[in-house]
Amino acid sequence: MKVAHEPAEVRALLDQARSEGRRTGLVPTLGALHAGHRSLVRRAAADCDFVVVSVFVNPLQFGPGEDFGSYPRDLEGDCAQAEEAGAHLVFAPSQEAMYPVPPLTTVRVERLSSVLEGRSRPGHFDGVATVVTKLFAIAGPCAAYFGEKDYQQLLVVRRLVTDLSLPVVVVACPTVREPDGLALSSRNRYLSPPERAAAPVLYWALLAGKRAIEEEGATDPAQVRAAMRAVAGREPLLALDYAEVASPEDLSSPATITAEVRLLIAGRLGRARLIDNVSATPPGTEA
Amino acid sequence: MKVAHEPAEVRALLDQARSEGRRTGLVPTLGALHAGHRSLVRRAAADCDFVVVSVFVNPLQFGPGEDFGSYPRDLEGDCAQAEEAGAHLVFAPSQEAMYPVPPLTTVRVERLSSVLEGRSRPGHFDGVATVVTKLFAIAGPCAAYFGEKDYQQLLVVRRLVTDLSLPVVVVACPTVREPDGLALSSRNRYLSPPERAAAPVLYWALLAGKRAIEEEGATDPAQVRAAMRAVAGREPLLALDYAEVASPEDLSSPATITAEVRLLIAGRLGRARLIDNVSATPPGTEA
Repeated sequence: MKVAHEPAEVRALLDQARSEGRRTGLVPTLGALHAGHRSLVRRAAADCDFVVVSVFVNPLQFGPGEDFGSYPRDLEGDCAQAEEAGAHLVFAPSQEAMYPVPPLTTVRVERLSSVLEGRSRPGHFDGVATVVTKLFAIAGPCAAYFGEKDYQQLLVVRRLVTDLSLPVVVVACPTVREPDGLALSSRNRYLSPPERAAAPVLYWALLAGKRAIEEEGATDPAQVRAAMRAVAGREPLLALDYAEVASPEDLSSPATITAEVRLLIAGRLGRARLIDNVSATPPGTEA
Repeated sequence: MKVAHEPAEVRALLDQARSEGRRTGLVPTLGALHAGHRSLVRRAAADCDFVVVSVFVNPLQFGPGEDFGSYPRDLEGDCAQAEEAGAHLVFAPSQEAMYPVPPLTTVRVERLSSVLEGRSRPGHFDGVATVVTKLFAIAGPCAAYFGEKDYQQLLVVRRLVTDLSLPVVVVACPTVREPDGLALSSRNRYLSPPERAAAPVLYWALLAGKRAIEEEGATDPAQVRAAMRAVAGREPLLALDYAEVASPEDLSSPATITAEVRLLIAGRLGRARLIDNVSATPPGTEA
């Protein structure tokens, strides 16, 4: 497996692969790879003939006071995991290679960027949308793999691809979880042992909301939110940010739950801000 | 020459051309082609093996109360001119083909978009940057041709290409003028005969500013602005918007003129809002 640090080199390698008729796949990451990322790479390697994993801690998507400086960085470990999962190339640019001059250009997806995570992390999705557009431009026509764990990010990326007619097929991959239900995240390593023990509460809260819809027949979002909050509220280490019911297409708030919805949750455990989400479908509405 | 209406068809044709080793060129226009556009197409046809001219009146770059509805549309005439100038393809999408759903995504270039034309036309350059990014994504790797007449637009496009690492080479082409100095513009057809007779005043004002710098040795921007305004002020039909001295790279205002600057002017003549610009270089500073 090759490691490239310059955008021009990555573009040339992928252009070359495509000119040989190989299908190209991109897995954008912030590094600190774990089994969730590996599942994306494996899926990309199953679909494509040439897979590039980008490893770049993008400053544009971190707010002031967030963990840009302390975000875990381990390129050697990342390369080993990417290779083991089937990647052909790791693209690990420096800050200077990505932003040789301070960028003035921002890609923004209205509405999807200002709710939920966007309300708690102003500017976050602008930073994501901007760097993803740039990574797509460097990679060229490809399939790109994103985890459902970052569900709102997935919708933002899908939407910018549609709106800007980018030659990219966005592929969503299921969230990978620890045996106790905790969604894998690079930020889990911030958790102290007691926080780690408490962290699955986010998933249990989501499952309580899912049960309210799928088994108890709840159609009032307030009732589902209450079910999630009741579970979250029993964990004193968790500072809940939100537990919401949203449309799976545009994250709008349904007045009544009459079709599939997405349940999304976010909260802080010590210095780790964690998010998670699941789908829920009312009885008798499966397609 | 072919005419295509669907983005997917244009992408396929250009991908095909590139796969045959042909260099591809793009000339983005709002239609209503004139000799200025033809000069862009001729330059593209001299540089490239396959030239596409896009003709699309982009609603995103028109403000409320601007001339989106009345902007001249003449696809048949545009195709004839594009073909005569050497184009191989005209891309004339409908609004529905470009925006099948109302777009939520905006590309914005800070600073360059908020001064001069951006102050008079809020949101204009966001609309330009967004549609140009989309046209570039549809066209794929290419050279793209823009007129210096829209100097600020040229800088906005150059900057988004750099910031987003788009696989596009931006080529600037000189302004084409009528014999009396009026810069060619599709909006010139809005001018009544007396307004048309008065319209070259914009260029004469720019030339007065240029003379002040190049022949009279003026180094104070205020003196240059005064020279431009004095000429513009003698034309009662002209409602001057601005006459400014700016850095040719980032449009910032120099405190003193010690190197090449760009002189930019805008004003209204009847219902036509016209813009123009020239370069000016202080004596003894040529590279």
